[in-house]
Amino acid sequence: AQQYRITLLPGDGIGPEIITVAVQALTVIGKQFDLDFSFQEALIGGSAIDATGSPLPEETLKLCRNSDSVMLAAIGGYKWDSLPRHQRPETGLLGLRAGLGLFANLRPATILPQLVDASTLKREVVEGVDIMVVRELTGGVYFGEPKGVFETESGEQRGVNTMAYRSSEIDRIGKVAFETAQKRGGKLCSVDKANVLEVSQLWRDRITALAADYPEVELSHLYVDNAAMQLVRAPKQFDTIVTGNLFGDILSDAAAMLTGSIGMLPSASLGADGPGVYEPVHGSAPDIAGQDKANPLAQVLSAAMMLRYDLNQPAASDRLEKAVMTVLDQNYRTGDIMSEGMKLVGCQEMSDVLLAAL
Amino acid sequence: AQQYRITLLPGDGIGPEIITVAVQALTVIGKQFDLDFSFQEALIGGSAIDATGSPLPEETLKLCRNSDSVMLAAIGGYKWDSLPRHQRPETGLLGLRAGLGLFANLRPATILPQLVDASTLKREVVEGVDIMVVRELTGGVYFGEPKGVFETESGEQRGVNTMAYRSSEIDRIGKVAFETAQKRGGKLCSVDKANVLEVSQLWRDRITALAADYPEVELSHLYVDNAAMQLVRAPKQFDTIVTGNLFGDILSDAAAMLTGSIGMLPSASLGADGPGVYEPVHGSAPDIAGQDKANPLAQVLSAAMMLRYDLNQPAASDRLEKAVMTVLDQNYRTGDIMSEGMKLVGCQEMSDVLLAAL
Ligand SMILES: CC(C)[C@H](C(=O)O)[C@@H](O)C(=O)O
Ligand SMILES: CC(C)[C@H](C(=O)O)[C@@H](O)C(=O)O
Repeated sequence: AQQYRITLLPGDGIGPEIITVAVQALTVIGKQFDLDFSFQEALIGGSAIDATGSPLPEETLKLCRNSDSVMLAAIGGYKWDSLPRHQRPETGLLGLRAGLGLFANLRPATILPQLVDASTLKREVVEGVDIMVVRELTGGVYFGEPKGVFETESGEQRGVNTMAYRSSEIDRIGKVAFETAQKRGGKLCSVDKANVLEVSQLWRDRITALAADYPEVELSHLYVDNAAMQLVRAPKQFDTIVTGNLFGDILSDAAAMLTGSIGMLPSASLGADGPGVYEPVHGSAPDIAGQDKANPLAQVLSAAMMLRYDLNQPAASDRLEKAVMTVLDQNYRTGDIMSEGMKLVGCQEMSDVLLAAL
Repeated sequence: AQQYRITLLPGDGIGPEIITVAVQALTVIGKQFDLDFSFQEALIGGSAIDATGSPLPEETLKLCRNSDSVMLAAIGGYKWDSLPRHQRPETGLLGLRAGLGLFANLRPATILPQLVDASTLKREVVEGVDIMVVRELTGGVYFGEPKGVFETESGEQRGVNTMAYRSSEIDRIGKVAFETAQKRGGKLCSVDKANVLEVSQLWRDRITALAADYPEVELSHLYVDNAAMQLVRAPKQFDTIVTGNLFGDILSDAAAMLTGSIGMLPSASLGADGPGVYEPVHGSAPDIAGQDKANPLAQVLSAAMMLRYDLNQPAASDRLEKAVMTVLDQNYRTGDIMSEGMKLVGCQEMSDVLLAAL
């Protein structure tokens, strides 16, 4: 059997509950496809702070580096919100991205036919929406130097961050985006603020130059404010979107929320080589943690992305995704996607019906 | 009669058509309220580039500075999109904002009861939405230094912009926001990315400190990605939003598009003293320019904001806003807000019925 070492990062809040479900599903899939998963757990985020004082212990990063793939659940919670920056859960996540070189973040925003009515948008506007946001994840204003709070000559404070991209960083994410668009609907929309920002003008120039290598992909450009409007006005116009770290953070969340069911959305963060990190788009939901109420399906679909991208097991990935569709077709719903006439289940019960469907 | 010098900046595309309607309306209002408007026109944007080579001729700025208020229509168009940055229409707009010290941009996103169905969102989600976005307009990454495209040691290009705020800049816009919230629903939501950006942490700290001076205002904070989601999920939770230049650009456009009728939305840009600039949220719509199809009502409502904020004529402002409601109640619609059973009118015909309603 093919062997895979998977590092699990349950993190905070509902993290441990939902990652358990993904592990259960992978274990069944493993038997079916003769894949031998060994799971090892490590600390990140708030729980890592509580245990070690650091949101990303050196050991965690080492374990991730030595594995074939990483599954992350969710990090953060009110409890750690007022700690100094270097001790915040988010700092652990940024450190993981930088430490593993995960420059490409793939965030699908797909409306499942069973859940169209969960959207706050009208059925005819969102039915069939299937967007992939390709977000640059290790550059831009998230990591640019200089940064900090400095004292000015007049004695007041000045907060500074630097939004910067080197051409090689843009080319690298651009290639991933063009290749992604190629495998999808063949349309790529690059989002920037080139009418105001120099860094965006460089972004636009490089993406435009890359287009010559992908003649079958139709490239367009939008300013970020217009992109935010178009997502609300007519989301079906989008296939693949590529953008920088900050714009990608904002637009991928807006796109996700168009579906009305972010409890269903997975994501993948990939580097040039080495393991990727697979995690739900939603957060750690501390308010319902430990109550067996969480929706584990985004975590399960993240495991499916892992099978596809890191482990190159498309058939196993398909099987897992199909099982998720089956439980939805059987009308099982966790609280976040519940609607009239459906069967309300908890997190572990959802796991049971999913395993049955597998 | 009270005398007012108003500078008109028709700009590009549909600008001249729609500003004409606002002038016609102000002229009638002037007679009714004994206000004596003198209008002077100046160049900005693409039309200024064509005539003078500069998107903001020195003369325009001088004229604006010497007037009681400024009405701007819209700037830009494909024609000027590939000019070098210092010759772009947008650069003229940024220069106007900086030149007049317009640090506070007020952008209402209001759903009019007559136009609820124009929204792509479900009626129950958007009915009654009434949001005011207070956007900082002369700082942040739009103006921060250093900026530009530089060569790195390894010979590649690096695009750089600086997202920076001084505490005094934050306090200044914060005060406007708290005062705005005070006069509205008493709720202020400050939007930043304090979990990642130092400049946002300073923003959050200063806004939080200001809150002590406004005990009747209920202050909350959201990260920008979450704010984008919440606007789509449940926009009625918002009353007043305050945020920086870039986040305000994105979120105010997303909020505007929730209404489905951005042809109806005005805005005001205000400084510490001196004239403000009043303009529609929508753009110059070059595709329908000169065809008498444009919706002039956002420009008219911008004139109403001017009467209220710069000229301190609330009764005249109310009258103008009421006339706009009247023509909507009479079922007159331009193409952008047309729906079944309504009466389709052009730009000048809309003016005629508006003047009749006045
Ligand atoms: C938690 C935070 C640092 C993170 C980000 O901004 O990247 C999150 O919002 C995300 O999108 O994964
Ligand atoms: C045209 C552009 C420079 C401008 C901005 O980004 O501020 C516009 O989008 C706006 O919001 O007024």
